[in-house]
Amino acid sequence: MTDECIFCKIVKGEIPCNKVGENDDFLCFLDISPISVGHALIVPKQHFTNLLDFPVGLDLSFFSFAKEMAGKIVKAVGADGFNLGMNNGRAAGQIVFHQHTHLIPRFDDDGLSSWPHADASAKELEKTREKILKA
Amino acid sequence: MTDECIFCKIVKGEIPCNKVGENDDFLCFLDISPISVGHALIVPKQHFTNLLDFPVGLDLSFFSFAKEMAGKIVKAVGADGFNLGMNNGRAAGQIVFHQHTHLIPRFDDDGLSSWPHADASAKELEKTREKILKA
Repeated sequence: MTDECIFCKIVKGEIPCNKVGENDDFLCFLDISPISVGHALIVPKQHFTNLLDFPVGLDLSFFSFAKEMAGKIVKAVGADGFNLGMNNGRAAGQIVFHQHTHLIPRFDDDGLSSWPHADASAKELEKTREKILKA
Repeated sequence: MTDECIFCKIVKGEIPCNKVGENDDFLCFLDISPISVGHALIVPKQHFTNLLDFPVGLDLSFFSFAKEMAGKIVKAVGADGFNLGMNNGRAAGQIVFHQHTHLIPRFDDDGLSSWPHADASAKELEKTREKILKA
């Protein structure tokens, strides 16, 4: 997979990127097709497709690195907040199949809308909970 | 903050929830107002508002726990993928100000759309990169 994966090539320096930070586990660079100014990607240096094939027994310094990068980006572009997102699988909008995290700066009244949600009944929630506990 | 925070009360067991899992750092329970069946929240047991006030020097076992919970949920509801999301700040859609992560099961052709994005010029990207490196 490494030979064909565009994010592996970026991690190895074989393809250039607009790098804004890195630590031992991750590289952070600007999305070339941003949703908002400062939209960046956090990519693990190790290849895995998405969270579901993340290696058992491994953990990564994710929270501290995501905080560091988000703080710098929010300050740099003067954002009012930001979304952090991981799309896992084609059905969830994943396009590059090397796990990555989107950091998307947000601005008051920027017009990006949330997905619709609706209150579930206690019975529905309990039924779903039982399915998950059995899975 | 702890006394007034609904997620702190859930962590302490003072308010019930549809719990589906936990580890030392996190609790996972179903969102009572789901975007899709199986929509769950991962909440750190320690109170912080969002990633930007996450304690320096601390890290959390996030990737392994998120993988475990997402794997169970996807299997339980028969999803084709899932989104993982953190809304940081009111401008980003955050409503409860105790950091939390959404796990949202996705299904082929479920009609939930992505935000619009557009290619940025090399010049724009370099300008943004320089601002972030200085921040």
